Amino acid sequence: MKSKEQVLNQIRNQVLVSCQAYEPNPHATINDMVKMALAGQLAGCKGFRANHPDYVRAIRKAVGEEPVIIGIWKIHTPGNDVYITPTMQAVRELVDAGSDIIALDCTNRVNAYGKYCYDLIPQIKEEYPDIVIMADCSTYEEAKHAAELGADIVASTLSGYTEYTLDRYPLGTDFQLLKDMATIPNVFVLAEGRIWTREEAVTAFESGASACVIGTAITSPWMITDRFVKAVNKHFNR
Amino acid sequence: MKSKEQVLNQIRNQVLVSCQAYEPNPHATINDMVKMALAGQLAGCKGFRANHPDYVRAIRKAVGEEPVIIGIWKIHTPGNDVYITPTMQAVRELVDAGSDIIALDCTNRVNAYGKYCYDLIPQIKEEYPDIVIMADCSTYEEAKHAAELGADIVASTLSGYTEYTLDRYPLGTDFQLLKDMATIPNVFVLAEGRIWTREEAVTAFESGASACVIGTAITSPWMITDRFVKAVNKHFNR
Repeated sequence: MKSKEQVLNQIRNQVLVSCQAYEPNPHATINDMVKMALAGQLAGCKGFRANHPDYVRAIRKAVGEEPVIIGIWKIHTPGNDVYITPTMQAVRELVDAGSDIIALDCTNRVNAYGKYCYDLIPQIKEEYPDIVIMADCSTYEEAKHAAELGADIVASTLSGYTEYTLDRYPLGTDFQLLKDMATIPNVFVLAEGRIWTREEAVTAFESGASACVIGTAITSPWMITDRFVKAVNKHFNR
Repeated sequence: MKSKEQVLNQIRNQVLVSCQAYEPNPHATINDMVKMALAGQLAGCKGFRANHPDYVRAIRKAVGEEPVIIGIWKIHTPGNDVYITPTMQAVRELVDAGSDIIALDCTNRVNAYGKYCYDLIPQIKEEYPDIVIMADCSTYEEAKHAAELGADIVASTLSGYTEYTLDRYPLGTDFQLLKDMATIPNVFVLAEGRIWTREEAVTAFESGASACVIGTAITSPWMITDRFVKAVNKHFNR
């Protein structure tokens, strides 16, 4: 098993690829997400993010032991919006599947079980001292709180997706949040969310991120086509 | 079978997706290219380009009769650079597989059989009067000549890839060639080659293209990751 330091050093100043797809995306299969990871690996990518233990396990098997895998488990409960790795059982299964990093919702929202996911942080640290903990946040305050609880990584993943940050969604990647996160001591800042271009990736690093995760822009031919089609439709006033 | 007019109307002012991948790309399988086409179709794309009769047939089966398929067959011969649909037999197999459009090399270069591929144009017109003929060109003169021989579509596909246009490769999509092609009477101009961004797609239409084919930027997670990785490496002076 990699040490926390090894994991963070391996992804520092690197591009990671998030390999996720959901219905009706035709690529919403384990095999397709494994292919995405292999394509990323061939291009020199050193880490991946994947949803569900089965996906983590399959990608681990395909890419080998070296690459860093951020494991998440999106568990949706009707009537509740907190779904990224909301339980300790989810954490355990993701670790067993081969995750080096566990990412979880660290927003200021109660999950379906009446708890804040960030309260899992001390529990994860105790049970898995070598697992890197990544806090998916939507605001600076959430990131600061998660870091205080012991998160190793804070990420901009959820900016634009919580009710109180919806206004930031149309702005794209939340560079201001990255700048603010970079002022929090002793924590690794990771940029994630709506990075579409090379320029945005570079700006994320310039804003203080130490790594950047790119998803849809690489792994969703559906959504990439959609962007082109919409731009051309707009050009023709359709 | 669609009429030529139907085919051209269907792709006019549209984005088409080129579904091609080659070793060592992990997506270099028929199944993966079918998925790419399905992803494009889900995003509203009305046409596809595919290499090899087996790929054309599989994509046709997956997307149904309506979408337009541009069929090519890259047949490589050592010591010769002319490989896009270089023989009448290749044309026949592509038509049988379900192509609406046959694209072929129309550069001013002799193929492995000592002939110019553009000389296939009159032969295709005679044998398949309803098949749309697309001339993959690298210069204005080649496009003009192909149109005079009866090509229905002229495309910028090979600009940057012939020995005498290598200097245009680093410039990206050859918008000047599109502008020049647009002055040729009675021919449909198609932009293809190194379109990576929405802005480039729109500029292609502004330059006189009536349709635009996007390949790698949509269907190669490998090369998309590579672009991000290279940009970030450059930022860090690596």
